[in-house]
Order: sequence, then C-alpha cells, then structure tokens
Amino acid sequence: MRIEILCTGDEVLSGKTVNTNYSHMARRLQETGLDVVWGTTVGDDRQSLVQAFQLASGRADAVIVNGGLGPTVDDLSQEVAAEAAGVELELYEPWLANIRSFYERRGREMPPNNVKQAMLPKGAEFIDNPVGTACGFAIDIGAARFFFTPGVPREIRKMLDDEIIPRLLAISGGQVAVRLKRFHSFGLGESRVDHMLQGVEDLADGGEVKLGFQTHYPQLETKIFARGASAQELQVRFAPVERAVRDTLGAYLLAEDTESLEGNTVAKLSAVSSTIAIAECGTNGAVAGRLTAADADGVAVTHGVSTPTTIRLAKALAVSDKTDDSPLSEWVAEVAERVAAHSKATYGLAVIVSSNSTQGEGWVHVGIAVGDQRISRAACFVGGPDRVRVGGVEMALDCLRRHLSGLSIDDVTDFEKQ
Amino acid sequence: MRIEILCTGDEVLSGKTVNTNYSHMARRLQETGLDVVWGTTVGDDRQSLVQAFQLASGRADAVIVNGGLGPTVDDLSQEVAAEAAGVELELYEPWLANIRSFYERRGREMPPNNVKQAMLPKGAEFIDNPVGTACGFAIDIGAARFFFTPGVPREIRKMLDDEIIPRLLAISGGQVAVRLKRFHSFGLGESRVDHMLQGVEDLADGGEVKLGFQTHYPQLETKIFARGASAQELQVRFAPVERAVRDTLGAYLLAEDTESLEGNTVAKLSAVSSTIAIAECGTNGAVAGRLTAADADGVAVTHGVSTPTTIRLAKALAVSDKTDDSPLSEWVAEVAERVAAHSKATYGLAVIVSSNSTQGEGWVHVGIAVGDQRISRAACFVGGPDRVRVGGVEMALDCLRRHLSGLSIDDVTDFEKQ
Repeated sequence: MRIEILCTGDEVLSGKTVNTNYSHMARRLQETGLDVVWGTTVGDDRQSLVQAFQLASGRADAVIVNGGLGPTVDDLSQEVAAEAAGVELELYEPWLANIRSFYERRGREMPPNNVKQAMLPKGAEFIDNPVGTACGFAIDIGAARFFFTPGVPREIRKMLDDEIIPRLLAISGGQVAVRLKRFHSFGLGESRVDHMLQGVEDLADGGEVKLGFQTHYPQLETKIFARGASAQELQVRFAPVERAVRDTLGAYLLAEDTESLEGNTVAKLSAVSSTIAIAECGTNGAVAGRLTAADADGVAVTHGVSTPTTIRLAKALAVSDKTDDSPLSEWVAEVAERVAAHSKATYGLAVIVSSNSTQGEGWVHVGIAVGDQRISRAACFVGGPDRVRVGGVEMALDCLRRHLSGLSIDDVTDFEKQ
Repeated sequence: MRIEILCTGDEVLSGKTVNTNYSHMARRLQETGLDVVWGTTVGDDRQSLVQAFQLASGRADAVIVNGGLGPTVDDLSQEVAAEAAGVELELYEPWLANIRSFYERRGREMPPNNVKQAMLPKGAEFIDNPVGTACGFAIDIGAARFFFTPGVPREIRKMLDDEIIPRLLAISGGQVAVRLKRFHSFGLGESRVDHMLQGVEDLADGGEVKLGFQTHYPQLETKIFARGASAQELQVRFAPVERAVRDTLGAYLLAEDTESLEGNTVAKLSAVSSTIAIAECGTNGAVAGRLTAADADGVAVTHGVSTPTTIRLAKALAVSDKTDDSPLSEWVAEVAERVAAHSKATYGLAVIVSSNSTQGEGWVHVGIAVGDQRISRAACFVGGPDRVRVGGVEMALDCLRRHLSGLSIDDVTDFEKQ
C-alpha cells in the first residue's frame, strides 16, 4: 500500500515549527510495516490544498492529512476535503455535543467558532479524538482513502496509534513484518565502509535486504533493512548479513540499534563496579558531559574537570606543568592518573585537544590510567576546530570503550592525517 | 517568486531523520523575504524523484533539492537531474581535482566511487561547497531553476547563505533590501511577550514591519522583519519598534541578533579582566561547557568541575558536605566561593539541579561569589528532568549575566512554580 503524508499549515511550511509530526508518523508507520512513499507540505492556502489533495489522491492508496482542523478561519481541511470529494459539509451533532461538554467541564461557554470543528464532509467516517476538540475523519477522494488528523502532537500521536494504523492495516490486508538493524562505528568514513561491505547484501538467506548508511560525524551508522512475511523469517534472512557486517566493522563497531557509545561504556564500568574521573582540556567538558548524561544512576562517573588550557589543567589537578622534555602523550597519562587518584576513581581518563585552525588540523591526546597501568594515544585530526574537537571527544570515549573491551586503542581512523 | 523545497532520501522520508534541513532552509529564506510555497519529500527512488522534479518544475519558479549528492549508489540526484533536464552527465574536472586534494591532505587515496560526486549534468552551473566533497549545481528543468544541495546540515547551511540565497535574490529582482532584527530573552513565555508587545508594530516609521516569535526553550526569540527600498530606509523604519521591544523585554533581554548569552557574558568578564570558575551538579557540565565554548581565547574561564551528586561535589572541592541545617542556597554560594578560590578566579559560579520526575518539577540553586560577596537564587522549575536541567543551566548563565550587568537576579520567570 502506498501511503502519503500531507502536512498542512503556515507554521510548518515556513519552517517556524520543525515538522516532528511528520517524522513521528512516518517512523510509526514503518515500524508496523506500512511504507510512506511521499511527503507533501503546504500552507493554509485553499488553492495549494486543493492541488495537493488531487495529486495525493492520484498517486497514493491512503493519505494522512495532518493539521487544519482548528476552529479558526485559516483552518481549511474539512472545507477543502468536502470540495475535493464533491460533497457538502454537514453538522455532526454528536461531536458538537462533545465539544460543548468539553467546555462545560471547564466551566466555560463554547466559543461560537468551535461549531466549525463539528462540520464534516457528508458521508465521512468519524474518527474519535479523546484528548482534544478537533475530531478526525476519513473519506474517499478519487481512489485514495484520506485520513484527516489534528496538528497537536499528542493528539495526532494517540489518534495514529489507536485509530489510523488499525484502519490502514485492515485496508492493506496481511501483516507484513519489518526488520531494521543498525550498527554504529567510529573511525571509518562512509565510502570506505561502503567499499568494505560490497556484496554483503548477497549473503541474505532467502530474500533481499537493503544496505544503507548515515553519517553523523564522527559516527557512521550502517543499516540493513527489509520487509518479509514474519519476524522469524527476517531474522533468518538477516543473520549472515549481520554477522558479516559485525566482522567487517570489527573493533570500530561501538554500538548497535538504540545503544550509544557512552551508554555502553558506562554499562561496562558499572558491570565491574568501577568508577571513572575525567580531566579534559579543549573539549568544553563534553567527554564528562556525555558519560554523566549516560550515567542515570550517578554511580559510574565521580567527577569531571574541564579547563581551556593545559596550564590551567595542571593547576586544577596540582600536577607538574608539562615541560618541553616530557612528551604530551606521557603527560596526558599522568593527568589521567592524578584525576582518578583525586576522587578515588578506578579509572582516570584525560583528553587534550588543541587545534591549529590556520593549518586546518589539530592534535588529540588521550590518556587512560587504571591501577599501575598508563596508556595513551595521539592523533592528528584533519579539519577546523569544531571538527577536531568533536572528533577528539569521540576518540577519548572510544579509547575508553576499546580499553574496557580488551581491544587495542591504536587502530588508525579515517579522520587522521596519515 | 514561488519556491519549492524538495527533500530527498529514505532517512527523511521514513522519519528516521527529523527534517531540520527543511525548517532551516524555509526559515532562512523567509528571513530574506523569499517565500516557500510547497514542500516535497521523496525517498532514494528513481521513479519518485523523476515525478517530483516534473511536478516541482510545473508549479515553482525555483526549486531547492536537498540530498542525494553522496558517493554511494543510493544517491541519485545528479543522474535524475540530468534525465529530467534531457542532458548527459559529464565529469567536472576541477571538482574531481578538489576531491582528490581533499583526500591527499588527509594522506589517503580517494575511493573510486567519489568520482561520482564530480559528475554534473551537461550545462549545469557549478556551486561551490568549501566544507565537503559534494558540490552543488543549478540547472533549468522546464521553466524552473533547480538548485541541488548536499544533505549534510553544515554543508547546506553554508551553501544556502553563501550561494543559493544570493542567486535567488538575483532572479527575483534582487533590488529589495531586507532587515531582520532578533532579540533573545530568557524567562518569559511566547504568549506573554506577544501580549506585552501588542501594538508595537504600529510604531514603525514610514512603512510596515512584521513581528514574529520563535521559542527555543528556554530562550525566546522575538523577531522584527520587513522588506524595503534600502537598508537606510529600513533602519529608520525599525528604530522606534526596536527601542520599544528593548524597553519591554528589559532585564529579560540577554542578547541581540547573532550574540549569545554565554558570548556576552564572557565578553563582559574579559572587558574587566575577570576570570570565572564553575562548579556544577546535575547539569552534565553544560554551564562550564557553554562558557568555555564562548571563551575562544581561553582567558575568562579558569576551570569547571562537574559531578552527578552534591556529595561528589563536596569531595571534589573539599567543602563540608551540605548538612540538614544549612540551606542549599547558602551551601551553593559557599561552593561558588570555594571553586573560585581553588583556581584563583575572580568569580565563582555554582549550580545544583535536582529533579523530582514523579512530581514533574525540579529545583535549581545558583550561587555566585566575588570578593566578599555571596549571592544565590533558588527556583522550582516545572517539567520533566530534561526540561528542568536545560532551564537550570540557562538560569545559572542568566544570573551571571544579570549580576555582571548590575541587574537583580531575583526576577521570577514563567517557567517556575509560583
């Protein structure tokens, strides 16, 4: 079944409101095996609405129209729906009674323009909205079934799950299973991974899968996606492809599906009742910030110290300042040890990022200290200060993950000067 | 001029990615007096792309196509653009050389599939992308001018401002001056400010201005916008309106135009050669993070200490733990004094945020210490943990701004339980 989502309203068209209704609807539909094939956005403009309804009715089997059901004159959905379906609007008495009692319960009189919200195209199927005064409705326009829904996020979310999706599944017949598998890695660029995974789709067992990528620098997301007869069938079909992707990404793979780098790292620390203290310089405190945000119970991270310069960091932790004859890679490990000792944490993590914006590159130094062990990693990242900083934060977290997983922290990334 | 934005890509179509590229583009275009009249979203699907290009070319004067310029096989924009324009693809040598040198600077060889990014439809106008490997281009399809842009947010943002908007203004006549004035405030909600500013548009001198709002919780952006004959004419027209907005927002006004709260605060500190140290709890280090990020020269912020609990904060700074008989508002000021003393900073800023998610509220305590002075502010924010945390970070920064400006830090905000 081909589904179109048609979003209406000047707020959304002009970008004033970020269209999270669209992304929510499309994602929920896909999660139930229903595919959105087209998205349209138009304003509160009669001519555009008429044209959008006609086009959608010509290319989709089902259309979800979002917005335009309010009480004010710029809300045109019912009116244009009736026009497009070639019918009149008529009062739907039960809904008017419902709006009246909605106002009565709040001790207020219904403003007269709310009557408009109970006017539905003749022959339309009423769709309940238990949390607002804009009801939904469904009607055929051309060969497509149109579902009209309110623009208020919590209203459309409830109506979509409770009313629209069951109707769409009924129209589309058999249940279709969907499987989406996501792999998150750090250190390899999209085109490199695309090249490394060439032919991997052919490993699918008994059907097709689709491979896709999404770059969220410095992370890369590798996705495998397919629809099939059942969840079990898809699991079997995916298994060899998933294995191959995992093997190929190897030590660069840091999380799967909804897991995160910092979440997995905090989980690893907590699993062995370990704690960590962080000292950082040139990162705006982002390493400790991400670990702390992932540490919901407040048990893994003891504290974070952040400074703009290494001199300040030396002062804050009372370590000797870096001298010319002690390389930064040794000093950063000393800082890691000191910050751990300072708060009696099991692990110390230190990261120092410094950019040379005129050369378009910057150095990242990461130190990890635990017990008597001190290790460090240095990398020269290519890019402006923001890119170097963001890459350095990721590298610090990734070195910690690798160390906690017994992996080498020395694998070179695609973001470094080589 | 009728402008359409055509977003491509399975990620956006399926709702996996919230389409912030669309809202950013539409908002920027509107701010320069250009109106978006239609939005289309389609996936990485040849047939849909061809159809979408045809439809857009029939109803718009200019079309901005976003996405689909990557090196991988699912990126189809160039190919479909060539097909729709009825021309061949041809190699654009200068861009290929640019991609090669991009890789060379990183000491790596260009993967062969990157050649695809230098293939442009014959006769297309090249559009530079100084921050990525996907160049833009423009070509006529039917009666409309199509602008092809990359999907990476920082790339499209730069290309839109530097390359696309100037071309659109040139097409649309380009002689029109645009003025957009932005005021940023913290503590007042949109409907309150809307009410406070009623009638302010009528103060405009010799023409119309339009008032608008955009909520970026916890900040509110108040915008005045107009087009006119010249920059000077608009400046005169705006002056009385700007004065009135400034007076009305009063102490809640924290920045104008591209200024930021943290940027202005760091500037105030630097102007009097003062430094600041930050201690924070329950904020993931965001207060120090924002101040450090704004402190490009690394002179104003000495260091930041961040912990998940007050016990940890007491340990990290060697202050006595909060006892039941010392109120948190006194303790937070003591912490501020201690963190300043610790790094010999002029100012100490401390913030403690704690949420009660079952009650849907949370407490924010802010302390400031300078010389012998200790002041503090307590507020009960309404909302879930994320909302409380973000509001608390803003309040800490805003208290500092107010103190540095000689303003009271006790003005109540609309976000507090009253």
